[in-house]
Amino acid sequence: MTSVQHPSTPPTHTTIPEAEIFAAHEGGKLSVGVTRPIETTRDLSIAYTPGVAQVSRGIAADPQLATSHTWASRLVAVVSDGTAVLGLGDIGASASLPVMEGKSALFKTFADLNSIPIVLNTTDTDEIVETLVRIAPSFGAVNLEDISAPRCFELERRLIEALDMPVMHDDQHGTAVVVLAALLGGSTVVGKDLAGLRVVISGSGSAGVAVAEILLATGITDVIVIDSKGTLHPDRADLTGVKRDLAARTNPRGIAGGTREALRDADVFVGVSSSKLPEEHAAGMAEDAIILALSNPDPEIMPEVAANYAAVIATGRSDFPNQINNVLAFPGIFRGALDAGARRITLAMKLAAARAIADLAAPDLAADRIVPSALDPRVAPAVAAAVMAAVDAE
Amino acid sequence: MTSVQHPSTPPTHTTIPEAEIFAAHEGGKLSVGVTRPIETTRDLSIAYTPGVAQVSRGIAADPQLATSHTWASRLVAVVSDGTAVLGLGDIGASASLPVMEGKSALFKTFADLNSIPIVLNTTDTDEIVETLVRIAPSFGAVNLEDISAPRCFELERRLIEALDMPVMHDDQHGTAVVVLAALLGGSTVVGKDLAGLRVVISGSGSAGVAVAEILLATGITDVIVIDSKGTLHPDRADLTGVKRDLAARTNPRGIAGGTREALRDADVFVGVSSSKLPEEHAAGMAEDAIILALSNPDPEIMPEVAANYAAVIATGRSDFPNQINNVLAFPGIFRGALDAGARRITLAMKLAAARAIADLAAPDLAADRIVPSALDPRVAPAVAAAVMAAVDAE
Repeated sequence: MTSVQHPSTPPTHTTIPEAEIFAAHEGGKLSVGVTRPIETTRDLSIAYTPGVAQVSRGIAADPQLATSHTWASRLVAVVSDGTAVLGLGDIGASASLPVMEGKSALFKTFADLNSIPIVLNTTDTDEIVETLVRIAPSFGAVNLEDISAPRCFELERRLIEALDMPVMHDDQHGTAVVVLAALLGGSTVVGKDLAGLRVVISGSGSAGVAVAEILLATGITDVIVIDSKGTLHPDRADLTGVKRDLAARTNPRGIAGGTREALRDADVFVGVSSSKLPEEHAAGMAEDAIILALSNPDPEIMPEVAANYAAVIATGRSDFPNQINNVLAFPGIFRGALDAGARRITLAMKLAAARAIADLAAPDLAADRIVPSALDPRVAPAVAAAVMAAVDAE
Repeated sequence: MTSVQHPSTPPTHTTIPEAEIFAAHEGGKLSVGVTRPIETTRDLSIAYTPGVAQVSRGIAADPQLATSHTWASRLVAVVSDGTAVLGLGDIGASASLPVMEGKSALFKTFADLNSIPIVLNTTDTDEIVETLVRIAPSFGAVNLEDISAPRCFELERRLIEALDMPVMHDDQHGTAVVVLAALLGGSTVVGKDLAGLRVVISGSGSAGVAVAEILLATGITDVIVIDSKGTLHPDRADLTGVKRDLAARTNPRGIAGGTREALRDADVFVGVSSSKLPEEHAAGMAEDAIILALSNPDPEIMPEVAANYAAVIATGRSDFPNQINNVLAFPGIFRGALDAGARRITLAMKLAAARAIADLAAPDLAADRIVPSALDPRVAPAVAAAVMAAVDAE
């Protein structure tokens, strides 16, 4: 079915012992340190009383000084209500914390950004907006995380309006950026034109909607989005809100049915739901297909099965090749936005981020290497620089 | 006036250049780091997807696991609404941030505790309680800071009721603990019995009230509290709430008037307001008096002046001898409470903390050394151990 050579080592799934994982999370994964040690009376007089009073007085007189003389303006709040944690669903605030701590650890590791997890006891959109507005002087950007759809769309929109700082729901836009980067690389590998790709997105939650939006914005016209009841199209009477809007702008061939019908001759499958992709549906895809099975922790189709029907296969996991992980995007996007002093994270910034990721993969592009490694230390700085340039161009 | 020998070097006030202070606060004073480096694919698979999903699942199944496998249960939120910042008053959330960062730096330096500043856009008590309840799964203790009286009393009480974790308004109880420690040491230096001391507290705000309460709790009966209108006594018709309650339990000799009248033959002056103490009022104190002029950054009376009328002089500043600074108390109190898994910070824990501080000063007690140095690394562990023992004894 495929003309592109497969990687010589087939993907294997390394299982890490549960005891090792739990041990690594014991006590949490973050630590708050001091930037300057407090060792002498003079240090104490500077960092605390009486010296600190001068800095507080200074900010009271000139609020702009808070930007340069506190950590808040460059601190990212990683905010979740625990309603859509990984593929685990609504498991609550405390259970979401290990993910948020992990996110903060990645912000630090890849973009040298300080961040703090803020997990919420409430899932009410009004209350979340109100709460973040009240604590907003504590931080300088908001990474929304693992918040269920369709609440996440309204929540993000309202926070962008209410807070004078960059706000991004990473499950939406981080995913969209890395998927676009993967398709820039993947389409080159299989020798297909990006704009001409037939793309099927399985999942109409936060990620599915944002992926559809960014692909439409790049000029891909044949995008089909599938929810639990089948393909989105204008004839479906059950659609409201964001889905209704998407139905009107996608699925130009008016395909009805489910993944079987949508995937017939499709070039790209993007899985961003927890629905499994049956092998026989994948079998109907076009030659040199691209399968991005991004559901975490369990991909929609296992790479070893997908390899029978696709030339390029990627998952969201770090233990398979071609990890399409948001970590390629969010650290650099926030770093670039904060470095540029941006108040919004715009479409232009997201497109620039995707291109920067794809550009780094370009020199040694291969079927099992359509994006850079998630650990590649060049990625976040390159993304940040591209995002800054996009801010400056606006 | 004094029979105790003065320190050979008189207190001098070292002025640190403003530029040096501002430079030390640039970019803020805190940093969020990772406890385990993320360098390999395996590290990433453990700290983030797919490994983290197992920990999140584990907490969803057994919420108690959040205590051991996230940082939240030992994370202190340093919370302020910026209404009573140092001696600077209501300067707002952002201007309070340098102080809260300083506090977090001290938590780390002295008690190895992680903490994050949360500064609030609201000064409404209901809203503050509601906000902290909503974000409560993010942390494991609350250090309230620089919140104006009398709101701070109700706020602390309501948060203690609403949150299942240690909550302490440090301006009240941290101050009370170090003042008691100072009087334990100071009374020994001047050879007076603690319970028999005549104590005058200038200031009926958060610190004044808490100092009065802890001194009454230790058996000191002759305590006079002074507000801006004079001594508290039951005949004053203008008193309400906490002050009215204090008036009924203090000032047993029924002294009317102000500091002049209250200080006549008094053994101890505790200054916890920004009111200046006139030299001629200090002159009326008993022989071998103790003056704790704790207002920050400007003491009620400068040590070089106070030295004419008192045997023991202390301030809140790190650039004078005898620094009566809350840093002696709060890191160890929270560390002990968290180590013990305590849900409340009780009077017994506070008394134990004061005694632990005084015990460390005992071996080389002197008029200019009634408490240990704020930098003494033995203090916080000793306080934490004493607080833990007090929890176990309850």
